[in-house]
Amino acid sequence: MKLYDLEVSGNCYKVRLFAALAEINVDLHAVDFMNQEHKSESILKLNSFGQLPILQDDQITLRDSQAILVYLANKYAGEAWWPFEAHLQADVMQWLSVAANEIYHGPNMARLVVKFSAEADYEKALHNSHKILSIIDQHLSSNNWLAANRPTIAECAIFPYIALANEGKIDVSKYKNIVKWLNRVKELPGFISMPGLKC
Amino acid sequence: MKLYDLEVSGNCYKVRLFAALAEINVDLHAVDFMNQEHKSESILKLNSFGQLPILQDDQITLRDSQAILVYLANKYAGEAWWPFEAHLQADVMQWLSVAANEIYHGPNMARLVVKFSAEADYEKALHNSHKILSIIDQHLSSNNWLAANRPTIAECAIFPYIALANEGKIDVSKYKNIVKWLNRVKELPGFISMPGLKC
Repeated sequence: MKLYDLEVSGNCYKVRLFAALAEINVDLHAVDFMNQEHKSESILKLNSFGQLPILQDDQITLRDSQAILVYLANKYAGEAWWPFEAHLQADVMQWLSVAANEIYHGPNMARLVVKFSAEADYEKALHNSHKILSIIDQHLSSNNWLAANRPTIAECAIFPYIALANEGKIDVSKYKNIVKWLNRVKELPGFISMPGLKC
Repeated sequence: MKLYDLEVSGNCYKVRLFAALAEINVDLHAVDFMNQEHKSESILKLNSFGQLPILQDDQITLRDSQAILVYLANKYAGEAWWPFEAHLQADVMQWLSVAANEIYHGPNMARLVVKFSAEADYEKALHNSHKILSIIDQHLSSNNWLAANRPTIAECAIFPYIALANEGKIDVSKYKNIVKWLNRVKELPGFISMPGLKC
């Protein structure tokens, strides 16, 4: 199983983190981002969105970090990280949507501007970030984990860009429940870090 | 089962459409949007994001249209609309992320600006729209359905805001494969329309 990977990408880290936590063997193929390999014809054939990560498992090719998490959890980790029961699965799903939307356009976008000089509205990204961080902090005031009362792929989808928020000049220290949750995730057996992560 | 609903919301329509296609009985509770009922204390207790739709089924409360689709499909429609097999489920999931991100910040946002005077960057929304419409059109050049070779909840998640794109002054007629796909969705047994939809 092969992961087209970029070390500094939080989206790729979501997959690397989950594979480590669930003890799934994935071979990393480092994509040459500086030379725009992710926009090359061979990669665009695998993912017309021109984005990483991409997972290849036998004949299966998947894009989108959330979809890859669902695939790996469903196929290789039973229902430990992706409950099969409808209301619990939907509980996790709520947070996969947050990862795809609010987190992407919040802390991820702020980091892209600060660290990678992306052309985007930093103030908007900052506003989005504090809006979603406030909601998550409130949610975690009465929950140890995002969904289903246990660590799930929701953690892998949401943790990376919040843990990397400092690289977008966003201070998460005032979100006390988030800070405790970040620490809980870091203490999960098998946890791995990535460059830029405050841990 | 109760859906907190807004007739003109494409996100609510996703759920109404799926319930109709899969013959699931849902009682609609029309939320008084003009009087900001969705920001009222009683609704915020159900969904701290202050957004619609919200689904209540016995003791279960769910926000996020994609999560509600997953719940309803998983619980009430077997795997017809939400395959359980890992790679097919992930295939659908890829498009649920697109609904939460690219469609939300594309045709949905353009419509919010044009129809509801939302304060957002229309040119950006237009750019996002044509980018994702091109990708989807290309995908549909060799696929009748978005995922898993059959109609799934991916259709319910992606169809509404593309079918409503004209309300955001986006012309989808040049995307020939999308036009054919829109017609295929409209011909599904049980299909229902919504105000503003070109059908």
